[in-house]
Amino acid sequence: MGDKVKYLLEESQIPKRWYNIQADLPKPAPPVLHPGTLQPVGPDDLAPLFPMALIMQEVSTEREVEIPEPVREVYRQWRPSPLFRARRLEKALGTPAKIFYKYEGVSPAGSHKPNTAVAQAFYNKQEGITKLSTETGAGQWGSSLAFAGALFGLEVKVFMVRVSYDQKPYRRALMETYGARCLPSPSDTTQFGRSVLEKDPKHPGSLGIAISEAVEIAATNDDTKYALGSVLNHVLLHQTVIGLEAIEQMAMADAYPDVIVGCTGGGSNFAGIAFPFIGAGLRGGAKPRIVAVEPAACPSLTRGKYAYDFGDTGHMTPLAKMHTLGSTFTPPGFHAGGLRYHGMSPLLSHMKELGLLEAVAYHQTECFKAGVTFARAEGILPAPEANHAVKGAIEEALRCKREGKAETILFNLCGHGHFDMQAYIDYTQGKLVDQNYDEKELAMALAGLPSVPEPA
Amino acid sequence: MGDKVKYLLEESQIPKRWYNIQADLPKPAPPVLHPGTLQPVGPDDLAPLFPMALIMQEVSTEREVEIPEPVREVYRQWRPSPLFRARRLEKALGTPAKIFYKYEGVSPAGSHKPNTAVAQAFYNKQEGITKLSTETGAGQWGSSLAFAGALFGLEVKVFMVRVSYDQKPYRRALMETYGARCLPSPSDTTQFGRSVLEKDPKHPGSLGIAISEAVEIAATNDDTKYALGSVLNHVLLHQTVIGLEAIEQMAMADAYPDVIVGCTGGGSNFAGIAFPFIGAGLRGGAKPRIVAVEPAACPSLTRGKYAYDFGDTGHMTPLAKMHTLGSTFTPPGFHAGGLRYHGMSPLLSHMKELGLLEAVAYHQTECFKAGVTFARAEGILPAPEANHAVKGAIEEALRCKREGKAETILFNLCGHGHFDMQAYIDYTQGKLVDQNYDEKELAMALAGLPSVPEPA
Repeated sequence: MGDKVKYLLEESQIPKRWYNIQADLPKPAPPVLHPGTLQPVGPDDLAPLFPMALIMQEVSTEREVEIPEPVREVYRQWRPSPLFRARRLEKALGTPAKIFYKYEGVSPAGSHKPNTAVAQAFYNKQEGITKLSTETGAGQWGSSLAFAGALFGLEVKVFMVRVSYDQKPYRRALMETYGARCLPSPSDTTQFGRSVLEKDPKHPGSLGIAISEAVEIAATNDDTKYALGSVLNHVLLHQTVIGLEAIEQMAMADAYPDVIVGCTGGGSNFAGIAFPFIGAGLRGGAKPRIVAVEPAACPSLTRGKYAYDFGDTGHMTPLAKMHTLGSTFTPPGFHAGGLRYHGMSPLLSHMKELGLLEAVAYHQTECFKAGVTFARAEGILPAPEANHAVKGAIEEALRCKREGKAETILFNLCGHGHFDMQAYIDYTQGKLVDQNYDEKELAMALAGLPSVPEPA
Repeated sequence: MGDKVKYLLEESQIPKRWYNIQADLPKPAPPVLHPGTLQPVGPDDLAPLFPMALIMQEVSTEREVEIPEPVREVYRQWRPSPLFRARRLEKALGTPAKIFYKYEGVSPAGSHKPNTAVAQAFYNKQEGITKLSTETGAGQWGSSLAFAGALFGLEVKVFMVRVSYDQKPYRRALMETYGARCLPSPSDTTQFGRSVLEKDPKHPGSLGIAISEAVEIAATNDDTKYALGSVLNHVLLHQTVIGLEAIEQMAMADAYPDVIVGCTGGGSNFAGIAFPFIGAGLRGGAKPRIVAVEPAACPSLTRGKYAYDFGDTGHMTPLAKMHTLGSTFTPPGFHAGGLRYHGMSPLLSHMKELGLLEAVAYHQTECFKAGVTFARAEGILPAPEANHAVKGAIEEALRCKREGKAETILFNLCGHGHFDMQAYIDYTQGKLVDQNYDEKELAMALAGLPSVPEPA
């Protein structure tokens, strides 16, 4: 056999601490504001929604945060996840580049989401919480929290965007098999859901609406907290196990990335692979190029405004400064449901402003084409979200070919596409079309951003 | 962290040789017969269907067969597959038993089938073949051969049982994404298919009919060979990588199985895990109990007759002595499509007669109940076929609990259920019913077995 194709670590090499990039940033991210007072929110403001341990992680500037032993106990079923060298893909592309990918589809729920779902379930359980509410788009996050809830004995209620609820019964079935309850959103079980249904009984739903419903349930029930699958600092923190492992695995391969690629919706899988490498660079190490790939139909990093905005449609969340398309913006219904969010993680947005990362946007058909090329070479069928990262990595590899450079490319393959086969059918049958957002709607949504005075 | 939950081997520890149990059996299995002459078939009789390397493996009595380097190159993407200790399941059951499972769902196609698909594609390619034809029921085998075909540049044509073709579009989409062509069987592209459609234009198809169609294509086209996903000796041989790895991994866990459990349709995943352990026993080592679990609605090992029969409905295959329900027997349409076959591997059938294994049959609802218990404890959602093995293992663990015995149970979790979510929906909604075969039909099918004189 030639050189290795997969780099494995032992259970004992699962990181013992998550990496907090807030410790190494040259400038802290702008504070999250209370929407009424426009003053920075304090822990007490967030206490109805999250357990205190997570609130403390949200604002921590300690470089390392210990991973609780019961969380590592669960991690070790699929972590450390494998790092692959994509030798057959390199050959298919005829590139001199070395392509590596970290594969998070090995988790029971099939994506990176359990990395934080398990941690969030643990901290909630520890603080005596018995119920969690959350939202889900395509279902990756909902099924991950359902899995984590089953392990820690927590009741999980998932508000699933209605159009996905109807079109993706299999992700719903996975959540229900794990024992979670799944409701189509907008639902008649929340005040906000009812207000939306009153105006439009057939409303297809959106991630912003589902967040409002899940937040409302948590805010109005003492035994229930809210869990979010991306965007927030503590979520990105938990995902850093990906990059921390990848650093060890790249060393096993005697390599270091020149460029790191990931797809971005709320930003969690991208931060997971990139933060530990960016942090090493900030502390004086090598500085790989960091490329975020987002859908052209929902391009918060490349076309959004860096401004304070709400995280949800019902305006129940605090205000965060982020790249946003406006909380009233409704992205077209493309297949990568996990990337259909109007905002971007405030931390990643801030780092974009600091020049620590690049962003690029691609349409879905070119991403599916890349995904099929990948599947035929490597065997693994990527999720539609992950196809964006694959596309970004292939573009980098082809650039290397043009330039005759043997660069090392690392990308995060954040999940498999087994629950997204309809999208592949549409692609194969030529029915997949590239959808553009409405420029006027975007302009209106941006014009409607809340007015927040610049801090002194 | 406590003791390990997963036992991993390095790429370099992928077995270098498959294990051939025919070397260690106290008595050879009866020969396969030509249906016309009733004489043992020779290599030339099989040459229209298979490359000579596979024909030679079919009849080999060498204990070890070298795994070609290009096959190991592909294996190393997911092999060695992990061995898990099911600690959370043990706790949920309150059993003193130690439960281990080998997980084959980590392959790109999601089951153990690529272990032989890759080998078969390799040998065909090596002998200059450019096209492969095969059949598939639920789609596990078809998608595995499609994957292998993509790697070795072979055109793959899959005859998919029509009822599955219509009801399981996602498995079909996976095959097509890998570049294979998928046809509903009975089709109008073969003489046999047309003869079936003439009698019944809406015939739902069966595995036996699909085999006849795929065999016909290979027999009548020089550039095309046939590939079978189970039953045959060489297929079982290729699957022994499972058990060979498991022996090493059990040693890492400082344990040895008292009982080994697997599900049986044609027998390949079961043989894969069991043969290396049975062989060690035949050569003087410990003799674990070996338990085959089959569907009560298609119980070839527990209710079939040990007799010569055809492998297909169109009677194009040679005659093999096996536990059979009769080649005209049509099993009810339960969800574990991979176990819906009228016959059992001749080698396993012979070993059952030699008393080397036990068999037990369960209905599908009790198997799904076991699968959901497993998923909530271990996270992994098993395929409907694998749920039979889970059920068997849980029954053994509960027996240990009753008897107060801390036995070691090893079972093969041969694949995940991501493409079988409709079955889980049916189960969750209480729509899954246990189907019984028709006793009269079985009696008729058995009465219609070909008449073959006992050899002297």
